[in-house]
Parts: sequence; C-alpha cells; structure tokens
Amino acid sequence: MRPVQLWFEFASTYSYLAVMRIEPLAAARGIPVVWKPFLLGALFNRQGWNDSPFNLFPARGRYMWRDIERQCAKHGIPFRKPSHFPRNSLLAARVACAASGEDWMRDFVRATFRANFAEDRDIADRGVLSDVLSSAGVARGRGDEILAAAITPENKERLRRETDLAWEAGVFGAPTLIVDAEVFWGNDRVEEAFDWYAAHAGAARS
Amino acid sequence: MRPVQLWFEFASTYSYLAVMRIEPLAAARGIPVVWKPFLLGALFNRQGWNDSPFNLFPARGRYMWRDIERQCAKHGIPFRKPSHFPRNSLLAARVACAASGEDWMRDFVRATFRANFAEDRDIADRGVLSDVLSSAGVARGRGDEILAAAITPENKERLRRETDLAWEAGVFGAPTLIVDAEVFWGNDRVEEAFDWYAAHAGAARS
Repeated sequence: MRPVQLWFEFASTYSYLAVMRIEPLAAARGIPVVWKPFLLGALFNRQGWNDSPFNLFPARGRYMWRDIERQCAKHGIPFRKPSHFPRNSLLAARVACAASGEDWMRDFVRATFRANFAEDRDIADRGVLSDVLSSAGVARGRGDEILAAAITPENKERLRRETDLAWEAGVFGAPTLIVDAEVFWGNDRVEEAFDWYAAHAGAARS
Repeated sequence: MRPVQLWFEFASTYSYLAVMRIEPLAAARGIPVVWKPFLLGALFNRQGWNDSPFNLFPARGRYMWRDIERQCAKHGIPFRKPSHFPRNSLLAARVACAASGEDWMRDFVRATFRANFAEDRDIADRGVLSDVLSSAGVARGRGDEILAAAITPENKERLRRETDLAWEAGVFGAPTLIVDAEVFWGNDRVEEAFDWYAAHAGAARS
C-alpha cells in the first residue's frame, strides 16, 4: 500500500494543527506519511474564490479563529492570531517543494507554520525563511542554495504540477490526507485516515 | 448552567449524524440538551448563497457525500443518498417547532431525518410527515392537530424568530451546539461541546 499523503498549505490554520500533530500519531501506528505542499489559493480560484473562505464568509471566519484557539489549547500547540491572514505562502511552498528529499524538510515545515501561527512573522519574506531554515538546523550556505533552488523555473513548475495533481485527486481544501483513492479533509480526519490505512493495509496483507 | 443547545436543520446531512448520535452520548454523561430546529437556508441567504454550499461548490459536495457515507457506516447509521438535495425542510421544521414541548418530539425528529436520508422520502410532503408522526407514536388525530398548528402565523413567526436567534448566537451552519456562549459547529464537535459543558459545569459547582 502506498504511504499516506498529507497535502498541506502554509497559510492554512487547520494545516498547522495537522502538521504539528501528525508525526507522533503516525509513528505510534507505524504508518508511513509523505508530506506534500501545494497552493490552496489556486484551488480556491477554481472554486470561484479570490480570497480565503474564512474572509469571504465572515461568520465562518469568526468561528474558525475561536475553534483554532480551542484546538491549539487542547493539543498544547502554541498559537497567536496572525496580524495578516492568509499570508502569502508561495515562497515557503516552493522551498518545501525544493526540500522534499531533505531530512530536515519536516522541521522546516513545522518551523514555518510556527513562524506564521505562533510568532506572527511574514513567511513571504525571504529573510524570515532564511531564519526559519537556520532554526531547522540547515547551514546558512545550504539554506541560500535551497532558497535559490526554490525559484528556478523547474521547481516553480513542479509545485504547479503538484497542485494540479492535488485537485485531480479530489483535494479542495487543506489539510487533506489521501489513502490510496480515499480522501480525508481536515485536521479532524487525521485519525480516521490512519484507521482507513490500517484496515486496508491489514486486508492487503491477509 | 443552561442546557446545551443542539441547533439542527432537517435538510442537513451532518445534522442527521448528530441527531442520531447525541442522545446516548448526552445520557451517558448526564448532560441536558435542548433540540432547536431552525432554517439553515435563511442563514445561507445571509452569507450570499441561494443553495447549499455542497451544490454551489461541487468538489466540496462530492467529498461530503463520501464522508457522510463513511461516517454513517462508522456509527451504524442507515444511509441512502437522497434523490434530491437539499430537500425543502420548511414544513418539517415548523412541525418540530410546534412539537417542542411534546415528549415524542425527538422521535419525530429522528424519524424525519431517517425518511430523508435513509428512505429517500420527500419530507416536504404533508402525507409523508403524517406517516412519520404515526411512526413516532403520535395518534392520527393528534398528528393532524400538530400539522395544523405548524402552519399558524404564530408558529411560523416563532420558527423565524428562532432562526434569527441562532444567527445572533453565532450559528452559520448545521448542526451547531451552543454551550453558554461557546459555539461548536458540526457533528465532529459534539463530544468537544460536551467536554466543554462538563468542564464548566464542574467549575460552576466548585
């Protein structure tokens, strides 16, 4: 069975929760997960939205901020409401895409989410991402290389292709977990996605 | 502490799940719940939608039907995708509103949801609701009285007022649980709403 795919977007509040929670849950159950950045804004555009639905529909947005605050408190995840939402996540997503094969990729992803949702820093800023790379243990020279690799035409195209693949697989929001062809949307479905994997991996073995 | 409010809409798939699940959960924890019908369509209008967002945003809708199917299977709740969605729920909501004080009200509510989401019947039809009332143990003559009471100007106005109250309390979707001033949206938040009640009722007593 293929690893579970975790599709995430750096500007997404519920992606923050999933990214901070998923690793111990996966490790405890021995479930392999691949982390896949994509551009949620592009998929919002396809649904006719030019902004986050949390901004377009204010009642829904007000609720989301309270819910995120409660969920972060429940899981012991630091949270400070960003002064700007959604933050431009394009460069961060390109860096994560360029860093896919690196063993520090997940540390970078978590640190970037923390910068956005716990430290109120602008993750669109190259200097901020440079700091974040350092905090994830990446040597300054290597960080500069990655930031350069992030904006090559090949890497930009790769992230676009990944975003198209996400849409074709049924992704319309973030985070989304995909287990074979089965789609699970939202931080609330992480455990169920793993249940699905466990049930079907077991069936595949037997 | 005031009882937990369960705001539900007969046309809403996730309300079906909550209504079918909530009673044993509440009983096990000794948590009082009042059931409050409202008109979700009116709150969708206020958000600029003239249809269910599951129809307006097809990718989201396709996912919802698969998610509901999985959730119903998980909880052992019968499900058949309705041939029409969302069903006109105005009369059913008026009946539930008129039946608020009745000891069979919750049986009626569950039976109406089953008619919609497990039996593919048109709950806008007076004859269907008459059958549903019978199946909830309401004598035919009493059922006719309730159906007549449902469409009096006073009862229509009462349901409109309830719907306004829901909006003012922060309701924008269904189901929604309200615990004092705290809003919990969705079947996924039933347990957390009860946790909140238990934590704060305990604090109030101590």
